[in-house]
Amino acid sequence: MNNMQYKLSDLIKNVDAVAIKGDPDCLISGVCTIQHSQPGHIAFLTNSLYRKYLAATQAAAVILLEADAASCPVNAVISKNPHYTYARIAAFFETQTPLAAGIHPSAVIGSECSIDPSAVIAANCVIGNKVKIAADVRIGPASAIGDEVEIGEATQIDARVSIYAKVKIGKRCRMLSGAVIGSDGFGFANQKGVWHKVPQLGRVIIGDDVDVGANTTIDRGAIEDTIIEDGVKLDNLIQVAHNVKIGAHTVIAGCVGIAGSSVIGKHCLIGGDSMIAGHVSIADQVILTGGTRVTKSIENAGIYSSGIIGAVSNQEFRKNNARFNRLENLMQRVKSLESEIKERKA
Amino acid sequence: MNNMQYKLSDLIKNVDAVAIKGDPDCLISGVCTIQHSQPGHIAFLTNSLYRKYLAATQAAAVILLEADAASCPVNAVISKNPHYTYARIAAFFETQTPLAAGIHPSAVIGSECSIDPSAVIAANCVIGNKVKIAADVRIGPASAIGDEVEIGEATQIDARVSIYAKVKIGKRCRMLSGAVIGSDGFGFANQKGVWHKVPQLGRVIIGDDVDVGANTTIDRGAIEDTIIEDGVKLDNLIQVAHNVKIGAHTVIAGCVGIAGSSVIGKHCLIGGDSMIAGHVSIADQVILTGGTRVTKSIENAGIYSSGIIGAVSNQEFRKNNARFNRLENLMQRVKSLESEIKERKA
Amino acid sequence: MNNMQYKLSDLIKNVDAVAIKGDPDCLISGVCTIQHSQPGHIAFLTNSLYRKYLAATQAAAVILLEADAASCPVNAVISKNPHYTYARIAAFFETQTPLAAGIHPSAVIGSECSIDPSAVIAANCVIGNKVKIAADVRIGPASAIGDEVEIGEATQIDARVSIYAKVKIGKRCRMLSGAVIGSDGFGFANQKGVWHKVPQLGRVIIGDDVDVGANTTIDRGAIEDTIIEDGVKLDNLIQVAHNVKIGAHTVIAGCVGIAGSSVIGKHCLIGGDSMIAGHVSIADQVILTGGTRVTKSIENAGIYSSGIIGAVSNQEFRKNNARFNRLENLMQRVKSLESEIKERKA
Repeated sequence: MNNMQYKLSDLIKNVDAVAIKGDPDCLISGVCTIQHSQPGHIAFLTNSLYRKYLAATQAAAVILLEADAASCPVNAVISKNPHYTYARIAAFFETQTPLAAGIHPSAVIGSECSIDPSAVIAANCVIGNKVKIAADVRIGPASAIGDEVEIGEATQIDARVSIYAKVKIGKRCRMLSGAVIGSDGFGFANQKGVWHKVPQLGRVIIGDDVDVGANTTIDRGAIEDTIIEDGVKLDNLIQVAHNVKIGAHTVIAGCVGIAGSSVIGKHCLIGGDSMIAGHVSIADQVILTGGTRVTKSIENAGIYSSGIIGAVSNQEFRKNNARFNRLENLMQRVKSLESEIKERKA
Repeated sequence: MNNMQYKLSDLIKNVDAVAIKGDPDCLISGVCTIQHSQPGHIAFLTNSLYRKYLAATQAAAVILLEADAASCPVNAVISKNPHYTYARIAAFFETQTPLAAGIHPSAVIGSECSIDPSAVIAANCVIGNKVKIAADVRIGPASAIGDEVEIGEATQIDARVSIYAKVKIGKRCRMLSGAVIGSDGFGFANQKGVWHKVPQLGRVIIGDDVDVGANTTIDRGAIEDTIIEDGVKLDNLIQVAHNVKIGAHTVIAGCVGIAGSSVIGKHCLIGGDSMIAGHVSIADQVILTGGTRVTKSIENAGIYSSGIIGAVSNQEFRKNNARFNRLENLMQRVKSLESEIKERKA
Repeated sequence: MNNMQYKLSDLIKNVDAVAIKGDPDCLISGVCTIQHSQPGHIAFLTNSLYRKYLAATQAAAVILLEADAASCPVNAVISKNPHYTYARIAAFFETQTPLAAGIHPSAVIGSECSIDPSAVIAANCVIGNKVKIAADVRIGPASAIGDEVEIGEATQIDARVSIYAKVKIGKRCRMLSGAVIGSDGFGFANQKGVWHKVPQLGRVIIGDDVDVGANTTIDRGAIEDTIIEDGVKLDNLIQVAHNVKIGAHTVIAGCVGIAGSSVIGKHCLIGGDSMIAGHVSIADQVILTGGTRVTKSIENAGIYSSGIIGAVSNQEFRKNNARFNRLENLMQRVKSLESEIKERKA
């Protein structure tokens, strides 16, 4: 966080549907959590589990729903969407190192590139040939950008990111460190027991406002393109295979794998550690809880899950596994009982 | 894809067991999928789900099995292995940027290296001491190659790959961006509650024609070596722990983890998201379907799987979990019924 | 391994509670496994599965428990903790390339940094502004260190690691290649169907003697910090989300995911491929077996597990899945039997 102070009224100036109950001139010098509140800071309350901390808060102000305003002992910022309002306010306290526009002398730039003068290309980047970099793009140190890549306005690529040739990235995207975009899809044809590479000729096309997490990988298409639509948010260590299509405004948590040619709808929420088999479709507005294994297409919006959840003691777990393995035996015993009863009836 | 055109007959010149039904002089300017076929392009048909697209195809030619040739309304390339034939033909349309042989001036090269003049070492690479790089090797930008590494002929290492000291890589391999090969294995000895590192002294030895995916990690052995045999293909985000041995021509899909000292046979197919415990052996020609958890050795070739598959509605899932937790109760109720029946008989 | 030779007695000079049975002057030129023992080398025996190799060992010496000493046909190093004693001895045979202290001319260093003269900063590193690097730190090639990072004495950062701004790392840590530390947490607020980034303002604070594996990712906190305490060991491809806290001397194997704000106790062992949901707590001294899915807090020390384990033939697996799906039907049939029996009684 930086060391700036802002009037509460200034912090909410451009945020819709927000009202202050209390002192609009109150000075705010940072954000804090409701459970570890600090004088002079602003907190937010969205999760009802944390409501118990409100009465004793030391924060200068709390962003909350109207329903919670009466219980707020300090200045209240009343919002229909406190998390969003918090996001807007917290942005005031973000420090982005101001970087001088331009290309660091240690960066290596290919031929026939078009790089906007407002763009920042940090130290030790390697940029290929015929690359187009729009205004206000920032590329962090030691990133490698392949030939004919296009990067839209105000997109930020962090340190040590790889963008393979011909990838197209929209505006205001963010790629975290270690992300690899446009690597060859995993396609091999078997001939007499030996695997031969199937050339991967498609691209990766990424829309506007897409976030890609640290060490996440997105493969280029085999023939057609892999497509990530506008507003998609991908967490860390996600694998997106060739020819996957992810619909606009879908959010995918960490450690998810999506096998080749699968299509995920718009406005989906994919829980962490979910795995999606190849060649399946998932409808718009589907929610997968964490760890869901999707093996068939999901045709309708809704919440889906799979397997047996929850950790139990290892002893209980062994018992459960034994029970599971006796299921067929149990079924046979029930069948015997049924025929015995039937016999007697007769 | 590039912008070249080829006669159909030229495309199949070196491919075995392939015949053209139709016009061998037909000009082909690219590849396309059967479902989104394009005039002047060539498609392939292997998956029966896509046969319905054949009748209306706009492709100039389709690669297919003899059995499908009669239904093909355009030029047919008849093959016993259409996917492999496609792989061979698609290679004509691949664009590899021709790189000038030699070492980019920004690369940093250690002492006593032996680098073939035909090798390409791209910008900002860092090469250690006593490294041997054979003919036609290509190393992409910002890769780091440790001391005493050996890289065989025509191996291609993409941007931002790490090869630790003493790793040995065969011929015609391909390492995608972000791969880490030869990192220390995860070995610690506990003494009085504190973990002490066990020195990792083995190497990683990689055969010929091995592919390693983006952000995949392969640890060096603790005492002996980690071994990846010829023709192995590893997808993205795979973890290969110390002292693992992967047999020749085994293919492993994304997000797989293989714990220490496990041995995987030759010609295996390991589905994505499979996890293999430490110190187990898997026989040759084993297929693991996606998500299989292997906890004991698999002695015989065959198809193996684990767990409960498939996503269901969250409501159904909760019911399933409840049912599962009532299994012991169910068993006891069946036992009661059995003794009741027995009693009456008596 | 290096080519040095040591007297057995010199190898154990500083190791507690160790005695030699045999010739203390015996020369040892390397380490070997007990199953592939080599003349002149030293092996260790901890796993009873390998005891069968002891009688025929060709090693010059074996590190083992007192109980195994009688069966040892060669020199024995008797230890209460053979694995730890091995770790200490193996360190003699480790080769660390001696690097000249100082900053490689190709490294790019920001302003107002404090870098100890004994530190090594390898080729093509990029170091931000106001970075503090203590004595004997080694930073491998092509790593990127953000502004205001602090790195403690004798910490070793390998090639191609990313440390984001303001991360604090203790002494004697080791970060393997591809690790990303301090990337933005995955926080977005939904407003009218569109996801807006929630600024991530916390840091990552790492204690002393922490190891972070290859391509592992640790996100910075949203408001407060993500904390990795002293002596924690993280394997490869682990995801640690924002505001996670990992207690001292906890060991986490590969491919684990820990969702946001979860707290893991001290001295835990987390098996590979375990997944821990967000906002849960795990007590000290908890062991999770591989693949455990934790969805609720674990209050007490103990061994925990989840799901159905073990790969079976695909045929058996399909049967198990069918049985599982018939569970409700089975329950209903048992209920029918019960009421039938009851009726007859009446």
